[in-house]
Amino acid sequence: MELKDFIRDIPDFPSKGIMYKDITPLLANAEAMQTAVNLFLKQLPDQNIQKVVGIESRGFFFATLLAQKLNAGFVPVRKKGKLPYRTFNEIYSLEYGEDELEIHEDAIREGERVLLHDDVLATGGTAAATCKLIEKCGGIIVQCNFLVGLDFLKGEENLKNYQVNSLLHY
Amino acid sequence: MELKDFIRDIPDFPSKGIMYKDITPLLANAEAMQTAVNLFLKQLPDQNIQKVVGIESRGFFFATLLAQKLNAGFVPVRKKGKLPYRTFNEIYSLEYGEDELEIHEDAIREGERVLLHDDVLATGGTAAATCKLIEKCGGIIVQCNFLVGLDFLKGEENLKNYQVNSLLHY
Repeated sequence: MELKDFIRDIPDFPSKGIMYKDITPLLANAEAMQTAVNLFLKQLPDQNIQKVVGIESRGFFFATLLAQKLNAGFVPVRKKGKLPYRTFNEIYSLEYGEDELEIHEDAIREGERVLLHDDVLATGGTAAATCKLIEKCGGIIVQCNFLVGLDFLKGEENLKNYQVNSLLHY
Repeated sequence: MELKDFIRDIPDFPSKGIMYKDITPLLANAEAMQTAVNLFLKQLPDQNIQKVVGIESRGFFFATLLAQKLNAGFVPVRKKGKLPYRTFNEIYSLEYGEDELEIHEDAIREGERVLLHDDVLATGGTAAATCKLIEKCGGIIVQCNFLVGLDFLKGEENLKNYQVNSLLHY
């Protein structure tokens, strides 16, 4: 099974000149999802992981699946104002302007080993901000993994201190 | 294991006078998540389901888990403008104003049996709009299920034509 057969190119989304990688055909196929989950697990340095962090909102698709397979808890990182309890915050730059991510202060305990997951690695700004949030909680990042890596955007350069793994590269 | 032990009350969130049911402690505990998934499966009328629809974004937490357990595909329903391909749209009323949900036109095939999932059933407006989207695609709704039902908001009255199941009631 070729997972790339389940990724669809959508031209000019979300704006003119961008070729968007649509992962919904993969999500709609149970066997493709299972294949992706198994590959994610196989490509981890180890499976001693207590928390899986998924980034809002497409990071949630695989993060709960990975958490259950690893017998780990799941932790959502969300946009500002969405999490109800006390949070750590991180502001990060976008192409135009900035945005802010949050994690619950008690989501990860000191010394817990953490897997960070998102669907796509683009410039790495969101993932780098999430790494900071995990470390504010005292977590140790085992790997940052992504379904799709857009290698031409050099996102790995923003994640130099971490092991990075994307299942599919473009 | 009492799942309600993993639901935390947050007063005055997102606004004054509202007691918010925070499910993140449940998500953070692998055994509690597994217990919830098993209960969801046990309380289905049958397991002949081809697609599980999760509503953005907290509905995504359990929807992919349920999809994998049922060997079904996962379909995200999202806020307007987030899905890249051709969509069906549904406008629905909020307490103040309105909002719009979308589903990819090709996400569900004619006659496919569908499980709708979201984390919380409140007034049922979002779920009812999602039911309409599923039916525009030609899907047959087997059940609408929720982790938490806020029974005092009478959401089931908005979902009269469907089987509704919430794991936890308040």
